[in-house]
Amino acid sequence: MACKNCLEKPVIKLQNNNVSLCKKCFIEYFEKKVKKTITDYKLIRKNENIVVACSGGKDSTVLLYLIKKITSNRRDIKITALAIDEGIHGYRNKSLEFLKDFCNKQEVELNIYSYKEEFTKSLDEILKTYKGIPCSICGVLRRYLLNKKSKELKATKLATGHNLDDEAQTITMNYFKNNVKMSARLGPIAGIIRDKGFIPRIKPLYFLTEKEVASYAFLKGFMDKFNECPNSPLSYRAQIRDTLNELENKYPGTKNGIISSFIEILPLLKEKYKNDHEVIKSCKICDEPSSQDICKSCYYIETVIKA
Amino acid sequence: MACKNCLEKPVIKLQNNNVSLCKKCFIEYFEKKVKKTITDYKLIRKNENIVVACSGGKDSTVLLYLIKKITSNRRDIKITALAIDEGIHGYRNKSLEFLKDFCNKQEVELNIYSYKEEFTKSLDEILKTYKGIPCSICGVLRRYLLNKKSKELKATKLATGHNLDDEAQTITMNYFKNNVKMSARLGPIAGIIRDKGFIPRIKPLYFLTEKEVASYAFLKGFMDKFNECPNSPLSYRAQIRDTLNELENKYPGTKNGIISSFIEILPLLKEKYKNDHEVIKSCKICDEPSSQDICKSCYYIETVIKA
Repeated sequence: MACKNCLEKPVIKLQNNNVSLCKKCFIEYFEKKVKKTITDYKLIRKNENIVVACSGGKDSTVLLYLIKKITSNRRDIKITALAIDEGIHGYRNKSLEFLKDFCNKQEVELNIYSYKEEFTKSLDEILKTYKGIPCSICGVLRRYLLNKKSKELKATKLATGHNLDDEAQTITMNYFKNNVKMSARLGPIAGIIRDKGFIPRIKPLYFLTEKEVASYAFLKGFMDKFNECPNSPLSYRAQIRDTLNELENKYPGTKNGIISSFIEILPLLKEKYKNDHEVIKSCKICDEPSSQDICKSCYYIETVIKA
Repeated sequence: MACKNCLEKPVIKLQNNNVSLCKKCFIEYFEKKVKKTITDYKLIRKNENIVVACSGGKDSTVLLYLIKKITSNRRDIKITALAIDEGIHGYRNKSLEFLKDFCNKQEVELNIYSYKEEFTKSLDEILKTYKGIPCSICGVLRRYLLNKKSKELKATKLATGHNLDDEAQTITMNYFKNNVKMSARLGPIAGIIRDKGFIPRIKPLYFLTEKEVASYAFLKGFMDKFNECPNSPLSYRAQIRDTLNELENKYPGTKNGIISSFIEILPLLKEKYKNDHEVIKSCKICDEPSSQDICKSCYYIETVIKA
């Protein structure tokens, strides 16, 4: 099997359509798809201050690199990196070292905020007493800081490295747990309006699979190993991820099918739940947006971290 | 653990909410739920001629028994049983023997139509040359006959034994294969209008799990073993069924979650695809309703059975 475009030696077979591509053509395909997502969904407009949520992992590294590259001739676009140091020993400290070096080379300003400084305890310390699923508390605290800090950095958009696999997992989790309403907030650009205290989130890697993102990161020489958070195997997401990977192997196109189905019903969900932002209040403790009087993050701070 | 209602010895633990029930209370719970579905979704109206699609399996046997029981004091409701003999040796012949006996005892008229007589070949014979997934061709032929024969029997409704597991599987299959549009035709009562040549289909067991239906059939003494079609393990449905069963075991409530999510978005789907029946034509060969010039059934008859 040769590269479909130029007959060179292929480096990857695309999962969905059985097409093989060489390194050069794959990189072209990948970058074109990211640009198309940005254009089709109007992810980047004029005079934007884009804060890229980075972890030092493959997805956000590829995202930062490509947003920088794609907007390189745009003087009206500012790109800044934002990282959250949850405090996961042996994992996040390593990936953040990589990220500092990467941002340095890319000449991107990097802002790191830690659970330890923001909440007085690292995740490792929190998990000494918190016996629930780690991702439950960690996800709430991380999203809280991402929104709060990108607001402080005067972001007009918060870009995240979510790929097609991530989104297919979230859609399936919400469907299986009867949280369809939550899915109305998904899609390549998040629907929640700015003036309610949320920074709009954009996902330029939305239509690229995890395998494709990993391949791009590897072929561009960014990294050659991909570490997983030591806490994530415990999560419901990890279970759904394994299930979808198994189905994808047996029935190629499953993940793409999920995304296509979702894109088809997303406008219906957005319309049905469009008035839901009206019930967004300000948290009585931290003033951040919340559906309850006290936001989930402050709830965890009061009942878990300070306890 | 005693029965939640009467403290008798329990016979079943409901999957979704961990509640244990004794035989009497479970049967009450089950019948109440079927009645509620019939009422809530107006499955049975006045002066109905209900044809029940029966196979001799647990689901349709329970369905026939309960529709008969629930409408026993209704002189304006006629109940008839309709069975399709696909011709699957060692399986369907046995279940139809059981069904004849059951209908006899229940004093319900039973009409059996076979692939052999209708299409000149039994499924076993068809599968000697057809090398695709058996359920693909068999499903098309069976649904074709069910609709055609219930029309000939002047049915106002065609009742089928689909349970919560069946529906959760179909919803998931459609979602994963990007056939969302097909899901607009699901739900406790099928949305396709009568005068396009389709008999409206109703599913009174919609909110009961397969385990609950099997338990009811066993506890009522209808049968004590449940056979699976020898062809079904090859199907995509069987794969999705196993996947959902695994998830249900780890995360009880998964199947209910899928159904609840679906019931939430079903009105949106029905609205979006409401004009789709306008493209229903009459098959040029058999005159049955079809989205193409030639219906799928006639396509199989011409290209597989006659070939």
